[in-house]
Amino acid sequence: MNDAPATPYSPATFRALTFHDLVPRFAAGQDTPRALLERCLETIAAREPVVQAWVCMNEAGARAAADDSTARWRDNRPLSLIDGMPIGIKDLLETRDMPTQMGCDAYRGNFPKRDNAAVWALRQAGAVVLGKTVTTELGGSHPGPTTHPFDARHTPGGSSSGSAAAVAARMVPTTIGTQVGGSIIRPASYCGNVALKPSQGGINRGERQATSMSTHGVHAGCVEDMWQVAIEIARRAGGDPGRPGLIGPPTPPTPRRPMALGVMETEGWPLLDEASRAAFEQVVEALRAQGVLVIRRADHALIEGFERTLDGAQALTSGITGWENHWSFRSIMALHPDGLSARSQAVVAMAERMTPDDYRQLLLQREEMRRRHEATAPLIDALIAPASPGPAPLWSGDVPGQPLKARPTGDAVFNTPSSALGAPVVTAPLTAVRGLPMGIQIMGQPQSDAAVTAIAAWMMQTLIPAAA
Amino acid sequence: MNDAPATPYSPATFRALTFHDLVPRFAAGQDTPRALLERCLETIAAREPVVQAWVCMNEAGARAAADDSTARWRDNRPLSLIDGMPIGIKDLLETRDMPTQMGCDAYRGNFPKRDNAAVWALRQAGAVVLGKTVTTELGGSHPGPTTHPFDARHTPGGSSSGSAAAVAARMVPTTIGTQVGGSIIRPASYCGNVALKPSQGGINRGERQATSMSTHGVHAGCVEDMWQVAIEIARRAGGDPGRPGLIGPPTPPTPRRPMALGVMETEGWPLLDEASRAAFEQVVEALRAQGVLVIRRADHALIEGFERTLDGAQALTSGITGWENHWSFRSIMALHPDGLSARSQAVVAMAERMTPDDYRQLLLQREEMRRRHEATAPLIDALIAPASPGPAPLWSGDVPGQPLKARPTGDAVFNTPSSALGAPVVTAPLTAVRGLPMGIQIMGQPQSDAAVTAIAAWMMQTLIPAAA
Repeated sequence: MNDAPATPYSPATFRALTFHDLVPRFAAGQDTPRALLERCLETIAAREPVVQAWVCMNEAGARAAADDSTARWRDNRPLSLIDGMPIGIKDLLETRDMPTQMGCDAYRGNFPKRDNAAVWALRQAGAVVLGKTVTTELGGSHPGPTTHPFDARHTPGGSSSGSAAAVAARMVPTTIGTQVGGSIIRPASYCGNVALKPSQGGINRGERQATSMSTHGVHAGCVEDMWQVAIEIARRAGGDPGRPGLIGPPTPPTPRRPMALGVMETEGWPLLDEASRAAFEQVVEALRAQGVLVIRRADHALIEGFERTLDGAQALTSGITGWENHWSFRSIMALHPDGLSARSQAVVAMAERMTPDDYRQLLLQREEMRRRHEATAPLIDALIAPASPGPAPLWSGDVPGQPLKARPTGDAVFNTPSSALGAPVVTAPLTAVRGLPMGIQIMGQPQSDAAVTAIAAWMMQTLIPAAA
Repeated sequence: MNDAPATPYSPATFRALTFHDLVPRFAAGQDTPRALLERCLETIAAREPVVQAWVCMNEAGARAAADDSTARWRDNRPLSLIDGMPIGIKDLLETRDMPTQMGCDAYRGNFPKRDNAAVWALRQAGAVVLGKTVTTELGGSHPGPTTHPFDARHTPGGSSSGSAAAVAARMVPTTIGTQVGGSIIRPASYCGNVALKPSQGGINRGERQATSMSTHGVHAGCVEDMWQVAIEIARRAGGDPGRPGLIGPPTPPTPRRPMALGVMETEGWPLLDEASRAAFEQVVEALRAQGVLVIRRADHALIEGFERTLDGAQALTSGITGWENHWSFRSIMALHPDGLSARSQAVVAMAERMTPDDYRQLLLQREEMRRRHEATAPLIDALIAPASPGPAPLWSGDVPGQPLKARPTGDAVFNTPSSALGAPVVTAPLTAVRGLPMGIQIMGQPQSDAAVTAIAAWMMQTLIPAAA
């Protein structure tokens, strides 16, 4: 088995680790979840020293779970279509059998011995919870040790750094990530994952309800695994309190060609370099060649009006989330004066300059964005955009004595709109720039997760030339 | 000082412990927060052996905080109008200096050393956080040790048992409670408190975001203290993530006579005994005598239509909250097989018979209730109802070997509508039945907390014959 990354990356040649295609083999007795787990552990042993995607693993627990799953498949009584799937959990979510340390010195050794609702649902569905994946500190911008699986000189993105990298390195077929700004979609874009950030409230966040625009989501090697994991969780644990939660078919939506797509430029458009913009425009041309109507801001006042409300979206999401988090961050600082990075302390300082009225103003601004987004619904099936301003940037660490570098895990500018809008988004690894992946994201109206997934599946099927 | 309760209770003769009237004395140097705290501690020493309102106290910390406050008043630089106010915190909220044990064996010794956002805000405003008040187990129905301050044979109500009793026993002027079904307003009704359950999301719940219809609220001896505590918290900590939070004047709203009030019967109407119903009808007559138009379900189709959507409100709130809590309850049971009462385990069993689709149905039913409530807005300033189906019932404990008694802290049937509606409600101690308090609640449209408070203040001023 060749575990080394193929360089340069190309969506036409990269073969992700997938699970759905193993299901018939499990059912026929030609493969077993335990054997799959061992293959995953081999890949991890080979790649982890450089990639550093994992904080900890419960190998013994995973082997026992895989053996149980193997027995269920043998007896023809699997618990679900993800029974036996090895999965990594971002280290912000509580797990009963592993610590939850949140990439934060203050949480070192934190071990509440509880399962987050989504983790509970995964176990109910028979998934094999293998380990905890690296997160930036508390899901913010201060990076962990994970490197980019296709070129270790680059960041894998964040905050779901380990979740994105573990899938890209073929260590596991899927992982759970979380997003409050761009923490699922950006690293998935950099790492060439398929990923879903569901509609706000789509997947029950369990104990992680502190912010008004964070979501749990799924990183995967293919659309089928992405959807299956999401829907198996939602069928058991539902959505956030007070929300209907993710609704859709019990198996992956059939690929569907959209009639019309809008292009969402966001504040990030000027940041695209020539190669990244060209890669995106190739996708637009390919869509048009397939008969899809593509509408841009210059083409229609509703798209232009929507884009204008996105001005300041990045500051808006930072302000809202900073305010919502600042009591817990302040508590951490009170308990552990050295337990929080300077980057996170700067967020607290920003939030403490805000008043409740400042926060209310940001909520109203967010409402206006949502109204403008809703107004585009009759015009287009979804919006597309680059999922990041180019491929993963270089990251060589902070320099002691120097000011902290800005955006060590990259820029979330293309992702904050979907977070602020509570809109579902799927990123698909449709392009490569300078030999590294750059995802194309498809964003729909809130609750249209299944429709967006069907479009993503169609685009993967149609636009990747050599994909099998 | 005579600390024994005056029996029988009467709203005309009972003198609550109040704070706002001490503020001019603090400012003039005629009294000090430290002296007030010592008076509170004397009352607690005298009453606590029977009332059992407190789980724990930080007397040393409170004395230090009261001394700091005394110095601020002396220097004419108080932090707020509640600077120096001794306050009790329901033991569901985290406090950095005291354990948070939630009335639950599984949480014995739990001490996260963090302040809930509301507690943080209280300290910022100079309040003296004295101790943690008894809650039923996890805020459910399984009772703690607290007894009724006016007759220890009765329940004080729950789940904010200690918060209600501490105020009624004149131990402190105010306490923080929480409500998910009827946990603020019912015990306040039984104990003769004034209390506010704010609009959903009105006061930042901090780490307690797990359910879609719980709120933090305030128990007090008078409307002035109730409002001042609520607004001082909201001015600093705002509302829940994504919510505007409580907005209103920085000092208590001026009492205001309503033009029209509706009577809300709820599913609880048939449960009112003759004396309780007569007490409520006297209030209705007194309102009419003051020129207030009182509209009942027989008088108007919009009130009748609203009442019909309240059928099943109690089952609805139990179902929604049971579902929302069941992962955390299940985790507790997994960790501590004997850590959860049989009453709470029955809630988990109920929730585990539900599916996400059952939950979605309940959310839609709740939406319909909210629409019907909104439709009454042009007709009336607010709705009034008994705040409990009569005064506090007797409670003598479960009998070993016998089935658990139903509703040990009383019946929330008059309270579940406001919880489900996300509507603000103030209860005012306007009546007595068989020598015990029974509150009258005033419920408004969401975000009308200040208007409802102004009506409650007017009713207290106008309808209590001998009140000074």
